[in-house]
Amino acid sequence: MGNNKAVILLSGGVDSATCLAIARAEGYECYALSVRYGQRHERELAAAKAVARALGAARHLVVSLDLGAIGGSALTDDIPVPKGRSEDEIGRGVPVTYVPARNTILLGLALGWAEVLGASDIFIGVNAIDFSGYPDCRPEFILAFQNLANLATRAATEQGIKFTIHAPLINMTKAQIIRRGLELGVDYSLTFSCYDPSPEGRACGQCDACQLRAKGFAELGMSDPALRVGE
Amino acid sequence: MGNNKAVILLSGGVDSATCLAIARAEGYECYALSVRYGQRHERELAAAKAVARALGAARHLVVSLDLGAIGGSALTDDIPVPKGRSEDEIGRGVPVTYVPARNTILLGLALGWAEVLGASDIFIGVNAIDFSGYPDCRPEFILAFQNLANLATRAATEQGIKFTIHAPLINMTKAQIIRRGLELGVDYSLTFSCYDPSPEGRACGQCDACQLRAKGFAELGMSDPALRVGE
Repeated sequence: MGNNKAVILLSGGVDSATCLAIARAEGYECYALSVRYGQRHERELAAAKAVARALGAARHLVVSLDLGAIGGSALTDDIPVPKGRSEDEIGRGVPVTYVPARNTILLGLALGWAEVLGASDIFIGVNAIDFSGYPDCRPEFILAFQNLANLATRAATEQGIKFTIHAPLINMTKAQIIRRGLELGVDYSLTFSCYDPSPEGRACGQCDACQLRAKGFAELGMSDPALRVGE
Repeated sequence: MGNNKAVILLSGGVDSATCLAIARAEGYECYALSVRYGQRHERELAAAKAVARALGAARHLVVSLDLGAIGGSALTDDIPVPKGRSEDEIGRGVPVTYVPARNTILLGLALGWAEVLGASDIFIGVNAIDFSGYPDCRPEFILAFQNLANLATRAATEQGIKFTIHAPLINMTKAQIIRRGLELGVDYSLTFSCYDPSPEGRACGQCDACQLRAKGFAELGMSDPALRVGE
């Protein structure tokens, strides 16, 4: 290893903010990476910046990538974001908010930056419980990427670096994630999760991301602090 | 499968042009993908466009990605491109023109586009013989990515698509690649490989890419048609 740097993928939502707090609590010097990938709004990048600062990231890098050119998702294309789906509907199948190959691409960028930094640890806040049915949030995907990382890089093949992909939230419910983050001092009023905010950057409250988040806070007997601040 | 579409990563150099010609000869409808990733010059994207048109690609998509923000390579950062290295030097170790995690990221983008198109085949012109010592040009890397692709996507997990990553040049010398391309009608005067062209877009003739290319043509008793055209 030689250092304790880690790259943390940071969208600015509840999960990635908690993931950053966990990496910090484990003693890593945290390099937060956000990707401007043609999301419909810039609001979540502003949240990522605020979260990175509040949680003491050594650096916050934003990389631009025009995923809109590829399309195929309600998050990057002209496809409506589904609203008001029931818990059953959210749990069933892959929704149109799935961005094709997103986590493969995001982890690829994190791997490139880790190699430049000399870091061997990468954190991603994927979740296979209260998630939205995305295939690239499953444990077998994370393991396959870790295997790839250790073949793909000069760091691994010439310098003997062994990359570890950490997915500390993968088996937690949203409520468990929030509880852990609160213990670690995460200020969730800074985070932002909505797939389809108003032009003023207010959360819709109806998309899958808003609903999963609200359910997590409700299970802890709380209201969503980001919504309270936004009102 | 359901269709015969393939995504072909196309940089505009000798290898990717040949790879596109091979995919076409195998009967695929070819979707060429180039990435503007902060290369020092736009010359190679112009070459990619000309090659895609000449070889009858159904579409040529250019995706922008700011790899310069990550840095760590002579191709995207402020590091000098090595010139005039001997064959022995070129074969030894990973050079500074290595872009951290590049093929992981490029294949991730190709996978995303393939999923949107409903394609199950991806071609990449990597080469493990007359290559520059890049870890992400080896067969074990390609296999690991294929394994990842079949876990990462909705196409694979919900629609039963089985992705294949084709690397038809992986065991060929540069001369064999060029001979195959000439048989398939590739016009190499359209291609461009130089890592460090002049401001007018002329190849330097001295970087590893220029030298490997020149050696390939020389072994076939030819001069490089791109250089002839450029003079």
